[in-house]
Amino acid sequence: MIFSSALIENAVNEFARMPGIGKKTALRLVLHLLKQEPSQVQQFSEVIARMRQQIRFCQQCHNVSDEDICSICASHSRKKELVCVVENIRDVMAIENTQQYNGLYHVLGGIISPIDGIGPDQLNIHSLVERVQQQGITEVIMALSPTIEGDTTIYYLSKKLKELPVKITTIARGIAFGGELEYADEMTLARSITNRLPLESYMQK
Amino acid sequence: MIFSSALIENAVNEFARMPGIGKKTALRLVLHLLKQEPSQVQQFSEVIARMRQQIRFCQQCHNVSDEDICSICASHSRKKELVCVVENIRDVMAIENTQQYNGLYHVLGGIISPIDGIGPDQLNIHSLVERVQQQGITEVIMALSPTIEGDTTIYYLSKKLKELPVKITTIARGIAFGGELEYADEMTLARSITNRLPLESYMQK
Ligand SMILES: [Zn+2]
Ligand SMILES: [Zn+2]
Repeated sequence: MIFSSALIENAVNEFARMPGIGKKTALRLVLHLLKQEPSQVQQFSEVIARMRQQIRFCQQCHNVSDEDICSICASHSRKKELVCVVENIRDVMAIENTQQYNGLYHVLGGIISPIDGIGPDQLNIHSLVERVQQQGITEVIMALSPTIEGDTTIYYLSKKLKELPVKITTIARGIAFGGELEYADEMTLARSITNRLPLESYMQK
Repeated sequence: MIFSSALIENAVNEFARMPGIGKKTALRLVLHLLKQEPSQVQQFSEVIARMRQQIRFCQQCHNVSDEDICSICASHSRKKELVCVVENIRDVMAIENTQQYNGLYHVLGGIISPIDGIGPDQLNIHSLVERVQQQGITEVIMALSPTIEGDTTIYYLSKKLKELPVKITTIARGIAFGGELEYADEMTLARSITNRLPLESYMQK
Protein backbone atom coordinates (compact mmCIF):
# COMPACT_ATOMS: atom_id res chain seq x y z
CA MET A 1 0.00 0.00 0.00
CA ILE A 2 1.37 3.40 -1.01
CA PHE A 3 0.82 6.46 1.19
CA SER A 4 1.67 10.04 0.44
CA SER A 5 1.64 10.87 4.17
CA ALA A 6 3.88 9.33 6.82
CA LEU A 7 1.39 10.44 9.50
CA ILE A 8 -1.30 8.32 7.89
CA GLU A 9 1.02 5.43 7.09
CA ASN A 10 2.15 5.20 10.72
CA ALA A 11 -1.43 5.30 11.99
CA VAL A 12 -2.49 2.58 9.53
CA ASN A 13 0.44 0.42 10.62
CA GLU A 14 -0.50 0.80 14.29
CA PHE A 15 -4.07 -0.33 13.64
CA ALA A 16 -2.88 -3.16 11.38
CA ARG A 17 -0.85 -4.65 14.25
CA MET A 18 -4.06 -5.61 15.99
CA PRO A 19 -5.52 -9.10 15.53
CA GLY A 20 -8.05 -9.39 12.73
CA ILE A 21 -7.29 -5.90 11.37
CA GLY A 22 -5.77 -5.99 7.88
CA LYS A 23 -4.24 -3.04 6.06
CA LYS A 24 -7.49 -2.20 4.24
CA THR A 25 -9.54 -2.17 7.43
CA ALA A 26 -6.82 -0.16 9.18
CA LEU A 27 -6.95 2.44 6.40
CA ARG A 28 -10.72 2.60 6.66
CA LEU A 29 -10.46 3.28 10.40
CA VAL A 30 -7.78 5.94 9.92
CA LEU A 31 -9.80 7.70 7.21
CA HIS A 32 -12.77 7.63 9.54
CA LEU A 33 -10.74 9.28 12.30
CA LEU A 34 -9.50 11.88 9.80
CA LYS A 35 -13.10 12.97 9.30
CA GLN A 36 -13.70 13.38 13.04
CA GLU A 37 -12.98 16.53 14.99
CA PRO A 38 -9.42 16.62 16.39
CA SER A 39 -10.90 16.79 19.92
CA GLN A 40 -12.80 13.54 19.32
CA VAL A 41 -9.69 11.73 18.13
CA GLN A 42 -7.79 13.17 21.09
CA GLN A 43 -10.42 11.67 23.36
CA PHE A 44 -10.21 8.29 21.61
CA SER A 45 -6.46 8.32 22.03
CA GLU A 46 -6.57 9.36 25.69
CA VAL A 47 -9.21 6.82 26.69
CA ILE A 48 -7.13 4.00 25.18
CA ALA A 49 -3.88 5.17 26.79
CA ARG A 50 -5.53 5.73 30.18
CA MET A 51 -7.13 2.29 30.07
CA ARG A 52 -3.76 0.57 29.69
CA GLN A 53 -1.95 2.83 32.18
CA GLN A 54 -4.50 2.72 34.96
CA ILE A 55 -5.90 -0.77 34.73
CA ARG A 56 -5.13 -2.94 37.75
CA PHE A 57 -5.81 -6.49 38.74
CA CYS A 58 -8.07 -7.17 41.70
CA GLN A 59 -5.98 -8.17 44.70
CA GLN A 60 -8.58 -10.72 45.67
CA CYS A 61 -9.84 -12.37 42.45
CA HIS A 62 -7.28 -11.17 39.83
CA ASN A 63 -10.03 -9.82 37.59
CA VAL A 64 -9.27 -6.53 35.80
CA SER A 65 -10.19 -3.64 38.00
CA ASP A 66 -10.19 0.14 38.28
CA GLU A 67 -9.35 -0.14 41.99
CA ASP A 68 -7.35 -2.46 44.25
CA ILE A 69 -10.48 -4.54 44.70
CA CYS A 70 -12.75 -5.05 41.67
CA SER A 71 -16.37 -3.95 41.55
CA ILE A 72 -17.58 -7.56 41.74
CA CYS A 73 -15.60 -8.40 44.89
CA ALA A 74 -16.57 -5.03 46.40
CA SER A 75 -20.30 -5.47 45.72
CA HIS A 76 -22.55 -5.97 48.74
CA SER A 77 -25.18 -7.85 46.74
CA ARG A 78 -23.00 -10.80 45.67
CA LYS A 79 -22.72 -14.09 47.52
CA LYS A 80 -19.26 -14.07 49.06
CA GLU A 81 -19.32 -17.78 49.90
CA LEU A 82 -19.54 -18.78 46.24
CA VAL A 83 -16.44 -18.58 44.00
CA CYS A 84 -16.35 -19.35 40.29
CA VAL A 85 -12.88 -20.31 38.99
CA VAL A 86 -12.19 -19.17 35.42
CA GLU A 87 -9.20 -19.12 33.11
CA ASN A 88 -9.19 -15.43 32.17
CA ILE A 89 -11.03 -12.11 32.30
CA ARG A 90 -12.90 -12.85 29.04
CA ASP A 91 -14.58 -15.74 30.85
CA VAL A 92 -15.60 -13.41 33.69
CA MET A 93 -17.21 -11.11 31.12
CA ALA A 94 -18.92 -14.02 29.36
CA ILE A 95 -20.43 -15.30 32.61
CA GLU A 96 -21.38 -11.80 33.81
CA ASN A 97 -23.23 -11.27 30.53
CA THR A 98 -25.49 -14.24 31.27
CA GLN A 99 -26.75 -12.31 34.35
CA GLN A 100 -27.34 -15.71 35.97
CA TYR A 101 -24.45 -15.77 38.42
CA ASN A 102 -24.34 -13.89 41.67
CA GLY A 103 -21.15 -15.10 43.39
CA LEU A 104 -17.52 -14.03 43.15
CA TYR A 105 -14.77 -15.12 40.75
CA HIS A 106 -11.21 -16.31 40.84
CA VAL A 107 -9.20 -15.71 37.67
CA LEU A 108 -6.41 -18.28 37.27
CA GLY A 109 -4.66 -16.29 34.56
CA GLY A 110 -4.31 -19.37 32.34
CA ILE A 111 -4.73 -23.10 32.41
CA ILE A 112 -2.31 -25.94 33.12
CA SER A 113 -0.78 -26.87 29.78
CA PRO A 114 2.46 -28.87 29.71
CA ILE A 115 2.66 -28.41 25.91
CA ASP A 116 2.68 -24.63 26.33
CA GLY A 117 4.98 -24.89 29.34
CA ILE A 118 2.35 -23.56 31.74
CA GLY A 119 2.49 -25.21 35.13
CA PRO A 120 0.51 -24.61 38.34
CA ASP A 121 3.14 -22.19 39.67
CA GLN A 122 2.38 -19.68 36.93
CA LEU A 123 -1.32 -19.58 37.80
CA ASN A 124 -3.19 -17.87 40.64
CA ILE A 125 -3.72 -21.12 42.53
CA HIS A 126 -2.08 -20.35 45.85
CA SER A 127 -4.34 -17.33 46.36
CA LEU A 128 -7.40 -19.48 45.59
CA VAL A 129 -6.47 -21.99 48.31
CA GLU A 130 -5.91 -19.08 50.71
CA ARG A 131 -9.31 -17.59 49.91
CA VAL A 132 -11.03 -20.90 50.54
CA GLN A 133 -9.15 -21.30 53.83
CA GLN A 134 -9.81 -17.80 55.10
CA GLN A 135 -13.02 -16.41 53.63
CA GLY A 136 -15.73 -18.90 54.56
CA ILE A 137 -16.21 -20.08 50.99
CA THR A 138 -18.63 -22.98 50.83
CA GLU A 139 -18.61 -23.75 47.11
CA VAL A 140 -16.02 -23.49 44.35
CA ILE A 141 -17.44 -23.76 40.83
CA MET A 142 -14.93 -24.88 38.21
CA ALA A 143 -15.89 -22.96 35.05
CA LEU A 144 -13.05 -24.07 32.81
CA SER A 145 -13.19 -24.94 29.14
CA PRO A 146 -14.01 -28.63 28.61
CA THR A 147 -10.63 -29.53 27.14
CA ILE A 148 -7.79 -31.80 28.23
CA GLU A 149 -6.07 -28.78 29.79
CA GLY A 150 -9.27 -27.72 31.54
CA ASP A 151 -9.73 -31.21 32.98
CA THR A 152 -6.08 -31.36 34.07
CA THR A 153 -6.49 -28.05 35.87
CA ILE A 154 -9.72 -29.13 37.55
CA TYR A 155 -8.03 -32.32 38.72
CA TYR A 156 -5.06 -30.38 40.11
CA LEU A 157 -7.26 -27.83 41.90
CA SER A 158 -9.52 -30.52 43.37
CA LYS A 159 -6.48 -32.20 44.94
CA LYS A 160 -5.34 -28.86 46.39
CA LEU A 161 -8.76 -28.16 47.88
CA LYS A 162 -9.53 -31.75 48.97
CA GLU A 163 -8.76 -31.27 52.67
CA LEU A 164 -10.85 -28.12 52.98
CA PRO A 165 -14.55 -28.01 53.95
CA VAL A 166 -15.76 -26.79 50.56
CA LYS A 167 -18.03 -28.25 47.91
CA ILE A 168 -16.46 -28.41 44.48
CA THR A 169 -18.76 -28.28 41.48
CA THR A 170 -18.20 -27.96 37.74
CA ILE A 171 -20.32 -26.20 35.16
CA ALA A 172 -22.67 -28.54 33.34
CA ARG A 173 -21.54 -29.97 30.05
CA GLY A 174 -23.79 -27.85 27.92
CA ILE A 175 -20.57 -26.88 26.25
CA ALA A 176 -19.17 -29.52 23.90
CA PHE A 177 -15.92 -31.13 24.99
CA GLY A 178 -13.05 -29.32 23.30
CA GLY A 179 -15.09 -26.11 22.98
CA GLU A 180 -13.87 -22.76 24.24
CA LEU A 181 -15.93 -21.41 27.09
CA GLU A 182 -15.81 -17.81 25.94
CA TYR A 183 -17.38 -18.66 22.58
CA ALA A 184 -20.37 -20.47 24.09
CA ASP A 185 -23.66 -18.64 23.61
CA GLU A 186 -25.19 -16.99 26.66
CA MET A 187 -28.05 -19.49 26.98
CA THR A 188 -25.73 -22.50 27.01
CA LEU A 189 -23.38 -20.82 29.43
CA ALA A 190 -26.20 -19.72 31.74
CA ARG A 191 -27.69 -23.21 31.74
CA SER A 192 -24.34 -24.84 32.42
CA ILE A 193 -23.84 -22.62 35.46
CA THR A 194 -27.35 -23.23 36.80
CA ASN A 195 -27.04 -26.99 36.24
CA ARG A 196 -23.56 -27.27 37.69
CA LEU A 197 -22.54 -30.68 38.97
CA PRO A 198 -20.64 -31.98 41.97
CA LEU A 199 -17.09 -32.80 40.93
CA GLU A 200 -17.56 -36.54 41.57
CA SER A 201 -20.27 -37.01 38.98
CA TYR A 202 -18.22 -34.98 36.49
CA MET A 203 -15.15 -37.14 36.93
CA GLN A 204 -17.15 -40.37 36.57
CA LYS A 205 -18.41 -39.53 33.10
CA MET B 1 -22.45 -6.09 27.60
CA ILE B 2 -21.52 -5.96 31.28
CA PHE B 3 -18.11 -4.70 32.37
CA SER B 4 -16.62 -4.71 35.85
CA SER B 5 -14.20 -1.92 34.85
CA ALA B 6 -15.15 1.55 33.65
CA LEU B 7 -11.68 1.92 32.09
CA ILE B 8 -12.34 -1.08 29.86
CA GLU B 9 -15.94 -0.13 29.18
CA ASN B 10 -14.93 3.36 28.00
CA ALA B 11 -12.21 1.96 25.75
CA VAL B 12 -14.61 -0.58 24.23
CA ASN B 13 -17.16 2.17 23.59
CA GLU B 14 -14.54 4.32 21.83
CA PHE B 15 -13.57 1.48 19.48
CA ALA B 16 -17.21 0.56 18.90
CA ARG B 17 -17.93 4.06 17.56
CA MET B 18 -15.88 3.28 14.49
CA PRO B 19 -17.56 1.97 11.34
CA GLY B 20 -17.68 -1.79 11.06
CA ILE B 21 -16.51 -2.33 14.66
CA GLY B 22 -19.18 -3.96 16.84
CA LYS B 23 -19.02 -4.32 20.61
CA LYS B 24 -17.54 -7.84 20.40
CA THR B 25 -14.75 -6.78 18.05
CA ALA B 26 -14.11 -3.69 20.17
CA LEU B 27 -13.73 -5.87 23.26
CA ARG B 28 -11.33 -8.16 21.39
CA LEU B 29 -9.17 -5.16 20.44
CA VAL B 30 -9.20 -3.78 23.99
CA LEU B 31 -8.25 -7.16 25.47
CA HIS B 32 -5.44 -7.35 22.94
CA LEU B 33 -4.14 -3.93 24.02
CA LEU B 34 -4.39 -5.00 27.68
CA LYS B 35 -1.88 -7.76 26.92
CA GLN B 36 0.59 -5.32 25.33
CA GLU B 37 3.24 -3.40 27.24
CA PRO B 38 1.96 0.01 28.46
CA SER B 39 4.66 1.70 26.34
CA GLN B 40 3.32 0.00 23.20
CA VAL B 41 -0.22 1.14 23.89
CA GLN B 42 1.11 4.62 24.65
CA GLN B 43 2.75 4.64 21.23
CA PHE B 44 -0.47 3.46 19.54
CA SER B 45 -2.37 6.23 21.25
CA GLU B 46 0.19 8.92 20.40
CA VAL B 47 0.53 7.96 16.74
CA ILE B 48 -3.25 8.19 16.30
CA ALA B 49 -3.53 11.53 18.11
CA ARG B 50 -0.54 13.01 16.26
CA MET B 51 -1.95 11.90 12.91
CA ARG B 52 -5.18 13.81 13.45
CA GLN B 53 -3.50 16.87 15.01
CA GLN B 54 -0.74 17.32 12.47
CA ILE B 55 -2.38 16.22 9.24
CA ARG B 56 -2.73 19.01 6.68
CA PHE B 57 -4.22 19.33 3.25
CA CYS B 58 -1.93 20.09 0.34
CA GLN B 59 -2.30 23.73 -0.66
CA GLN B 60 -2.03 22.76 -4.30
CA CYS B 61 -3.98 19.52 -4.79
CA HIS B 62 -5.93 19.22 -1.46
CA ASN B 63 -4.59 15.72 -0.86
CA VAL B 64 -3.73 14.83 2.76
CA SER B 65 -0.22 15.90 3.51
CA ASP B 66 2.42 16.10 6.24
CA GLU B 67 3.61 19.47 4.86
CA ASP B 68 2.04 22.48 3.15
CA ILE B 69 2.66 20.77 -0.19
CA CYS B 70 2.10 17.00 -0.40
CA SER B 71 4.83 14.53 -1.33
CA ILE B 72 3.22 13.89 -4.74
CA CYS B 73 3.09 17.58 -5.73
CA ALA B 74 6.62 18.07 -4.35
CA SER B 75 8.10 15.10 -6.22
CA HIS B 76 10.53 15.93 -9.04
CA SER B 77 9.81 12.71 -10.90
CA ARG B 78 6.11 13.34 -11.58
CA LYS B 79 4.66 14.92 -14.71
CA LYS B 80 3.48 18.35 -13.61
CA GLU B 81 1.48 18.96 -16.79
CA LEU B 82 -0.86 16.04 -16.07
CA VAL B 83 -3.59 16.38 -13.42
CA CYS B 84 -5.99 13.65 -12.35
CA VAL B 85 -9.22 14.93 -10.78
CA VAL B 86 -10.62 12.68 -8.04
CA GLU B 87 -13.41 12.87 -5.51
CA ASN B 88 -11.45 12.16 -2.34
CA ILE B 89 -8.15 11.05 -0.81
CA ARG B 90 -9.19 7.39 -0.89
CA ASP B 91 -9.24 7.65 -4.68
CA VAL B 92 -5.74 9.13 -4.67
CA MET B 93 -4.56 6.14 -2.66
CA ALA B 94 -6.39 3.68 -4.92
CA ILE B 95 -4.77 5.14 -8.04
CA GLU B 96 -1.32 5.42 -6.41
CA ASN B 97 -1.55 1.74 -5.52
CA THR B 98 -1.86 0.81 -9.19
CA GLN B 99 1.64 2.31 -9.69
CA GLN B 100 0.54 3.15 -13.24
CA TYR B 101 0.05 6.90 -12.92
CA ASN B 102 2.84 9.44 -12.84
CA GLY B 103 1.09 12.81 -12.90
CA LEU B 104 -0.39 15.01 -10.17
CA TYR B 105 -3.84 15.01 -8.58
CA HIS B 106 -6.61 17.41 -7.73
CA VAL B 107 -8.92 16.32 -4.91
CA LEU B 108 -12.38 17.86 -5.27
CA GLY B 109 -13.41 16.94 -1.74
CA GLY B 110 -16.72 15.53 -2.93
CA ILE B 111 -18.92 15.31 -5.97
CA ILE B 112 -21.81 17.44 -7.19
CA SER B 113 -24.95 15.94 -5.70
CA PRO B 114 -28.11 18.02 -5.52
CA ILE B 115 -29.81 15.29 -3.46
CA ASP B 116 -27.12 15.59 -0.78
CA GLY B 117 -27.11 19.36 -1.11
CA ILE B 118 -23.55 19.45 -2.46
CA GLY B 119 -23.06 22.09 -5.11
CA PRO B 120 -19.96 23.22 -7.04
CA ASP B 121 -19.18 25.94 -4.48
CA GLN B 122 -18.46 23.36 -1.78
CA LEU B 123 -15.88 21.59 -3.93
CA ASN B 124 -12.27 22.51 -4.82
CA ILE B 125 -13.19 23.61 -8.33
CA HIS B 126 -11.98 27.20 -8.35
CA SER B 127 -8.46 26.08 -7.44
CA LEU B 128 -8.52 23.52 -10.26
CA VAL B 129 -9.36 26.19 -12.83
CA GLU B 130 -6.57 28.36 -11.42
CA ARG B 131 -4.05 25.53 -11.65
CA VAL B 132 -4.97 24.89 -15.28
CA GLN B 133 -4.68 28.61 -16.04
CA GLN B 134 -1.36 29.12 -14.29
CA GLN B 135 0.64 25.90 -14.24
CA GLY B 136 1.01 24.81 -17.84
CA ILE B 137 -1.27 21.82 -17.41
CA THR B 138 -1.90 20.12 -20.75
CA GLU B 139 -4.24 17.33 -19.71
CA VAL B 140 -6.90 16.95 -17.04
CA ILE B 141 -8.02 13.36 -16.42
CA MET B 142 -11.47 13.01 -14.90
CA ALA B 143 -11.23 10.00 -12.59
CA LEU B 144 -14.67 10.16 -11.02
CA SER B 145 -16.96 7.29 -10.16
CA PRO B 146 -19.21 6.38 -13.11
CA THR B 147 -22.43 7.49 -11.47
CA ILE B 148 -25.00 10.17 -12.22
CA GLU B 149 -23.21 12.48 -9.77
CA GLY B 150 -19.85 11.71 -11.36
CA ASP B 151 -21.18 12.50 -14.81
CA THR B 152 -22.79 15.72 -13.56
CA THR B 153 -19.49 16.79 -12.05
CA ILE B 154 -17.54 15.94 -15.21
CA TYR B 155 -20.02 17.95 -17.26
CA TYR B 156 -19.75 20.93 -14.92
CA LEU B 157 -15.94 20.83 -14.88
CA SER B 158 -15.70 20.48 -18.66
CA LYS B 159 -17.76 23.65 -19.05
CA LYS B 160 -15.50 25.51 -16.62
CA LEU B 161 -12.34 24.38 -18.45
CA LYS B 162 -13.78 24.72 -21.99
CA GLU B 163 -12.05 28.01 -22.85
CA LEU B 164 -8.64 26.86 -21.65
CA PRO B 165 -5.98 25.16 -23.84
CA VAL B 166 -6.17 21.82 -22.05
CA LYS B 167 -7.14 18.33 -23.15
CA ILE B 168 -9.85 16.75 -20.99
CA THR B 169 -9.94 12.98 -20.75
CA THR B 170 -11.89 10.53 -18.64
CA ILE B 171 -10.79 7.19 -17.26
CA ALA B 172 -11.92 4.30 -19.43
CA ARG B 173 -15.14 2.58 -18.52
CA GLY B 174 -13.51 -0.51 -17.15
CA ILE B 175 -15.50 0.31 -14.08
CA ALA B 176 -19.18 -0.54 -14.34
CA PHE B 177 -21.56 2.41 -14.38
CA GLY B 178 -22.78 3.01 -10.85
CA GLY B 179 -19.67 1.40 -9.33
CA GLU B 180 -17.56 3.14 -6.75
CA LEU B 181 -14.10 3.96 -7.99
CA GLU B 182 -12.34 3.15 -4.73
CA TYR B 183 -13.68 -0.41 -4.72
CA ALA B 184 -12.44 -1.23 -8.21
CA ASP B 185 -9.61 -3.76 -8.27
CA GLU B 186 -6.14 -2.44 -9.11
CA MET B 187 -6.00 -4.06 -12.56
CA THR B 188 -9.29 -2.52 -13.68
CA LEU B 189 -8.32 0.84 -12.27
CA ALA B 190 -4.83 0.74 -13.85
CA ARG B 191 -6.32 -0.22 -17.21
CA SER B 192 -8.96 2.48 -17.06
CA ILE B 193 -6.27 5.10 -16.45
CA THR B 194 -4.02 3.83 -19.22
CA ASN B 195 -6.96 3.60 -21.66
CA ARG B 196 -8.40 6.97 -20.77
CA LEU B 197 -10.60 8.60 -23.38
CA PRO B 198 -11.03 12.14 -24.69
CA LEU B 199 -14.10 13.69 -23.11
CA GLU B 200 -16.01 13.89 -26.41
CA SER B 201 -16.06 10.14 -26.99
CA TYR B 202 -17.11 9.59 -23.37
CA MET B 203 -20.06 11.95 -23.65
CA GLN B 204 -21.27 10.38 -26.90
CA LYS B 205 -21.69 6.94 -25.39
ZN1 LIG C 1 -12.18 -9.03 42.45
ZN1 LIG D 1 -0.45 17.99 -3.46
